[in-house]
Amino acid sequence: MIGRLNHVAIAVPDLAAASALYTQALGAEVSEPQALPEHGVSVVFVVLPNTKIELLTPLGGQSPIAAFLERNPSGGIHHVCYEVDDLKAARDRLVTNGARVLGDGEPKIGAHGLPVLFLHPKDFNGALIELEQCAA
Amino acid sequence: MIGRLNHVAIAVPDLAAASALYTQALGAEVSEPQALPEHGVSVVFVVLPNTKIELLTPLGGQSPIAAFLERNPSGGIHHVCYEVDDLKAARDRLVTNGARVLGDGEPKIGAHGLPVLFLHPKDFNGALIELEQCAA
Repeated sequence: MIGRLNHVAIAVPDLAAASALYTQALGAEVSEPQALPEHGVSVVFVVLPNTKIELLTPLGGQSPIAAFLERNPSGGIHHVCYEVDDLKAARDRLVTNGARVLGDGEPKIGAHGLPVLFLHPKDFNGALIELEQCAA
Repeated sequence: MIGRLNHVAIAVPDLAAASALYTQALGAEVSEPQALPEHGVSVVFVVLPNTKIELLTPLGGQSPIAAFLERNPSGGIHHVCYEVDDLKAARDRLVTNGARVLGDGEPKIGAHGLPVLFLHPKDFNGALIELEQCAA
Protein backbone atom coordinates (compact mmCIF):
# COMPACT_ATOMS: atom_id res chain seq x y z
CA MET A 1 0.00 0.00 0.00
CA ILE A 2 2.49 2.68 1.02
CA GLY A 3 4.66 3.75 -1.89
CA ARG A 4 7.49 6.25 -2.17
CA LEU A 5 8.75 8.21 0.79
CA ASN A 6 7.61 11.63 -0.39
CA HIS A 7 9.47 13.59 2.29
CA VAL A 8 10.78 13.77 5.82
CA ALA A 9 9.66 16.93 7.63
CA ILE A 10 11.95 18.59 10.17
CA ALA A 11 10.58 21.43 12.31
CA VAL A 12 13.05 24.27 12.82
CA PRO A 13 12.86 27.49 14.82
CA ASP A 14 14.67 29.64 12.20
CA LEU A 15 14.19 28.76 8.55
CA ALA A 16 16.90 31.05 7.20
CA ALA A 17 19.47 29.68 9.64
CA ALA A 18 18.46 26.09 8.87
CA SER A 19 18.64 26.73 5.12
CA ALA A 20 22.13 28.14 5.48
CA LEU A 21 23.17 25.14 7.57
CA TYR A 22 21.95 22.61 5.03
CA THR A 23 23.52 24.57 2.17
CA GLN A 24 26.88 25.28 3.75
CA ALA A 25 27.60 22.49 6.24
CA LEU A 26 25.79 19.66 4.42
CA GLY A 27 26.34 20.95 0.88
CA ALA A 28 22.72 20.38 -0.11
CA GLU A 29 20.54 22.12 -2.67
CA VAL A 30 17.88 24.08 -0.77
CA SER A 31 14.90 25.80 -2.41
CA GLU A 32 13.76 29.35 -1.79
CA PRO A 33 11.38 29.65 1.19
CA GLN A 34 7.66 29.36 0.51
CA ALA A 35 5.02 30.80 2.82
CA LEU A 36 2.00 28.51 3.10
CA PRO A 37 -0.31 30.59 5.32
CA GLU A 38 -3.24 28.22 4.83
CA HIS A 39 -1.08 25.47 6.38
CA GLY A 40 0.47 27.65 9.08
CA VAL A 41 4.04 27.01 7.97
CA SER A 42 6.86 28.38 5.89
CA VAL A 43 8.92 25.71 4.18
CA VAL A 44 12.09 25.06 2.22
CA PHE A 45 12.85 21.84 0.38
CA VAL A 46 16.22 20.14 0.70
CA VAL A 47 16.51 18.39 -2.65
CA LEU A 48 18.04 14.90 -2.52
CA PRO A 49 18.45 12.51 -5.47
CA ASN A 50 15.70 10.15 -4.26
CA THR A 51 13.41 12.23 -2.03
CA LYS A 52 13.30 15.53 -0.20
CA ILE A 53 13.57 16.93 3.28
CA GLU A 54 11.13 19.66 4.20
CA LEU A 55 12.29 22.18 6.77
CA LEU A 56 9.23 23.76 8.36
CA THR A 57 8.81 26.73 10.65
CA PRO A 58 5.57 28.13 12.09
CA LEU A 59 3.74 30.90 10.22
CA GLY A 60 0.93 32.75 11.96
CA GLY A 61 -0.74 32.07 15.27
CA GLN A 62 -2.34 28.69 14.56
CA SER A 63 0.58 26.70 13.25
CA PRO A 64 0.24 22.90 13.50
CA ILE A 65 3.92 22.68 14.47
CA ALA A 66 3.89 25.36 17.19
CA ALA A 67 3.27 22.89 20.03
CA PHE A 68 6.04 20.60 18.74
CA LEU A 69 8.52 23.49 18.77
CA GLU A 70 7.41 24.45 22.28
CA ARG A 71 8.31 20.93 23.40
CA ASN A 72 11.45 20.86 21.21
CA PRO A 73 12.72 24.45 21.01
CA SER A 74 15.71 23.62 18.83
CA GLY A 75 13.51 21.59 16.44
CA GLY A 76 13.34 17.93 15.53
CA ILE A 77 12.17 15.35 13.03
CA HIS A 78 8.42 15.99 12.87
CA HIS A 79 6.90 13.46 10.45
CA VAL A 80 7.42 11.20 7.44
CA CYS A 81 5.15 11.26 4.39
CA TYR A 82 4.39 8.22 2.25
CA GLU A 83 2.63 8.32 -1.10
CA VAL A 84 -0.39 6.09 -1.69
CA ASP A 85 -2.28 5.37 -4.92
CA ASP A 86 -5.72 5.62 -3.34
CA LEU A 87 -5.92 7.68 -0.17
CA LYS A 88 -9.47 6.76 0.78
CA ALA A 89 -8.83 3.04 0.28
CA ALA A 90 -5.68 3.42 2.40
CA ARG A 91 -7.68 5.18 5.11
CA ASP A 92 -10.27 2.41 5.13
CA ARG A 93 -7.60 -0.30 5.40
CA LEU A 94 -5.94 1.55 8.26
CA VAL A 95 -9.19 2.02 10.16
CA THR A 96 -10.03 -1.66 9.67
CA ASN A 97 -6.66 -2.44 11.25
CA GLY A 98 -7.43 -0.27 14.27
CA ALA A 99 -5.31 2.76 13.35
CA ARG A 100 -6.65 6.23 14.03
CA VAL A 101 -6.70 9.00 11.46
CA LEU A 102 -6.27 12.50 12.87
CA GLY A 103 -9.05 15.07 12.58
CA ASP A 104 -12.38 14.05 11.11
CA GLY A 105 -10.88 11.25 9.04
CA GLU A 106 -11.50 12.97 5.72
CA PRO A 107 -8.62 13.89 3.39
CA LYS A 108 -7.57 17.55 3.33
CA ILE A 109 -5.57 19.34 0.67
CA GLY A 110 -1.96 19.30 1.86
CA ALA A 111 0.99 21.59 1.33
CA HIS A 112 1.67 20.15 -2.15
CA GLY A 113 -1.92 20.68 -3.35
CA LEU A 114 -2.76 16.98 -3.06
CA PRO A 115 -5.10 15.21 -0.61
CA VAL A 116 -3.43 14.08 2.62
CA LEU A 117 -4.24 12.40 5.92
CA PHE A 118 -2.24 12.15 9.14
CA LEU A 119 -2.18 9.01 11.30
CA HIS A 120 -2.09 9.02 15.08
CA PRO A 121 1.52 8.66 16.24
CA LYS A 122 0.47 6.55 19.21
CA ASP A 123 -0.64 3.89 16.72
CA PHE A 124 2.71 3.92 14.86
CA ASN A 125 5.43 3.67 17.49
CA GLY A 126 5.50 7.39 18.15
CA ALA A 127 6.07 8.32 14.49
CA LEU A 128 3.70 10.87 12.95
CA ILE A 129 2.84 9.57 9.47
CA GLU A 130 1.35 11.63 6.65
CA LEU A 131 -0.19 9.83 3.68
CA GLU A 132 -0.38 11.76 0.43
CA GLN A 133 -2.43 10.84 -2.59
CA CYS A 134 -0.11 10.20 -5.56
CA ALA A 135 -0.26 12.79 -8.29
CA ALA A 136 -2.41 11.51 -11.17
CA MET B 1 27.65 16.92 -0.52
CA ILE B 2 24.83 14.87 0.97
CA GLY B 3 23.39 12.43 -1.54
CA ARG B 4 20.57 9.92 -1.32
CA LEU B 5 18.49 9.49 1.79
CA ASN B 6 19.67 6.00 2.67
CA HIS B 7 17.08 5.40 5.39
CA VAL B 8 14.92 6.81 8.14
CA ALA B 9 15.35 4.93 11.43
CA ILE B 10 12.41 4.51 13.78
CA ALA B 11 13.01 3.08 17.26
CA VAL B 12 10.31 0.66 18.39
CA PRO B 13 9.79 -1.25 21.64
CA ASP B 14 8.56 -4.47 19.98
CA LEU B 15 10.00 -5.37 16.58
CA ALA B 16 7.57 -8.18 15.83
CA ALA B 17 4.56 -6.01 16.60
CA ALA B 18 5.95 -3.13 14.54
CA SER B 19 6.68 -5.47 11.60
CA ALA B 20 3.12 -6.76 11.71
CA LEU B 21 1.78 -3.20 11.82
CA TYR B 22 3.77 -2.07 8.78
CA THR B 23 2.85 -5.23 6.88
CA GLN B 24 -0.85 -5.32 7.71
CA ALA B 25 -1.98 -1.76 8.34
CA LEU B 26 0.40 0.01 5.93
CA GLY B 27 0.68 -2.80 3.39
CA ALA B 28 4.46 -2.55 3.19
CA GLU B 29 7.10 -5.14 2.38
CA VAL B 30 9.05 -5.81 5.57
CA SER B 31 12.24 -7.91 5.73
CA GLU B 32 12.96 -10.68 8.20
CA PRO B 33 14.50 -9.42 11.46
CA GLN B 34 18.27 -9.24 11.67
CA ALA B 35 20.16 -9.28 14.97
CA LEU B 36 23.15 -6.94 14.89
CA PRO B 37 24.69 -7.59 18.31
CA GLU B 38 27.80 -5.54 17.53
CA HIS B 39 25.50 -2.53 17.04
CA GLY B 40 23.20 -3.29 19.96
CA VAL B 41 20.05 -3.48 17.82
CA SER B 42 17.76 -5.82 15.98
CA VAL B 43 16.39 -4.38 12.77
CA VAL B 44 13.84 -4.93 10.01
CA PHE B 45 13.77 -3.00 6.76
CA VAL B 46 10.55 -1.56 5.40
CA VAL B 47 11.22 -1.58 1.67
CA LEU B 48 9.94 1.46 -0.24
CA PRO B 49 10.43 2.18 -3.95
CA ASN B 50 12.93 5.00 -3.34
CA THR B 51 14.46 4.35 0.09
CA LYS B 52 13.88 2.28 3.21
CA ILE B 53 12.67 2.66 6.76
CA GLU B 54 14.62 0.83 9.42
CA LEU B 55 12.69 -0.28 12.48
CA LEU B 56 15.16 -0.74 15.34
CA THR B 57 14.80 -2.26 18.76
CA PRO B 58 17.47 -2.64 21.46
CA LEU B 59 19.52 -5.83 21.61
CA GLY B 60 21.67 -6.48 24.65
CA GLY B 61 22.51 -4.24 27.57
CA GLN B 62 24.45 -1.49 25.79
CA SER B 63 22.10 -0.52 23.02
CA PRO B 64 22.61 2.96 21.54
CA ILE B 65 18.83 3.39 21.35
CA ALA B 66 18.00 2.31 24.91
CA ALA B 67 18.04 5.84 26.32
CA PHE B 68 15.85 7.09 23.47
CA LEU B 69 13.26 4.40 24.24
CA GLU B 70 13.39 5.25 27.93
CA ARG B 71 12.46 8.83 27.01
CA ASN B 72 9.99 7.67 24.33
CA PRO B 73 8.58 4.33 25.51
CA SER B 74 6.28 3.86 22.53
CA GLY B 75 9.13 4.67 20.11
CA GLY B 76 9.76 7.49 17.68
CA ILE B 77 11.69 8.68 14.65
CA HIS B 78 15.31 8.28 15.75
CA HIS B 79 17.54 9.47 12.89
CA VAL B 80 17.93 10.04 9.16
CA CYS B 81 20.88 8.70 7.17
CA TYR B 82 22.35 10.43 4.12
CA GLU B 83 24.89 8.90 1.76
CA VAL B 84 28.09 10.79 0.99
CA ASP B 85 30.77 10.04 -1.61
CA ASP B 86 33.69 10.76 0.70
CA LEU B 87 32.93 10.43 4.40
CA LYS B 88 36.20 11.92 5.68
CA ALA B 89 35.92 14.92 3.35
CA ALA B 90 32.32 15.36 4.54
CA ARG B 91 33.49 15.21 8.14
CA ASP B 92 36.15 17.83 7.53
CA ARG B 93 33.68 20.17 5.83
CA LEU B 94 31.24 19.78 8.71
CA VAL B 95 33.87 20.45 11.35
CA THR B 96 35.03 23.52 9.42
CA ASN B 97 31.43 24.74 9.56
CA GLY B 98 31.29 24.27 13.32
CA ALA B 99 29.28 21.03 13.42
CA ARG B 100 30.17 18.38 15.96
CA VAL B 101 30.71 14.73 15.08
CA LEU B 102 29.71 12.29 17.82
CA GLY B 103 32.29 10.04 19.44
CA ASP B 104 35.95 10.46 18.55
CA GLY B 105 35.21 11.90 15.12
CA GLU B 106 36.53 8.86 13.25
CA PRO B 107 34.25 6.78 10.99
CA LYS B 108 33.02 3.46 12.38
CA ILE B 109 31.64 0.51 10.47
CA GLY B 110 27.86 0.88 10.56
CA ALA B 111 25.00 -1.57 10.43
CA HIS B 112 25.31 -1.97 6.62
CA GLY B 113 29.04 -2.78 6.77
CA LEU B 114 30.03 0.68 5.50
CA PRO B 115 31.78 3.53 7.34
CA VAL B 116 29.42 5.93 9.13
CA LEU B 117 29.49 9.00 11.34
CA PHE B 118 26.77 10.59 13.46
CA LEU B 119 26.38 14.37 13.82
CA HIS B 120 25.34 16.13 17.01
CA PRO B 121 21.57 16.75 16.91
CA LYS B 122 21.99 20.08 18.71
CA ASP B 123 23.86 21.33 15.64
CA PHE B 124 21.09 20.22 13.23
CA ASN B 125 17.81 21.48 14.68
CA GLY B 126 17.33 18.50 16.96
CA ALA B 127 17.64 15.95 14.15
CA LEU B 128 20.15 13.13 14.61
CA ILE B 129 21.95 12.71 11.26
CA GLU B 130 23.96 9.67 10.20
CA LEU B 131 26.29 9.97 7.24
CA GLU B 132 27.17 6.76 5.44
CA GLN B 133 29.98 6.30 2.95
CA CYS B 134 28.52 5.35 -0.44
CA ALA B 135 29.20 1.80 -1.50
CA ALA B 136 32.08 1.76 -3.99
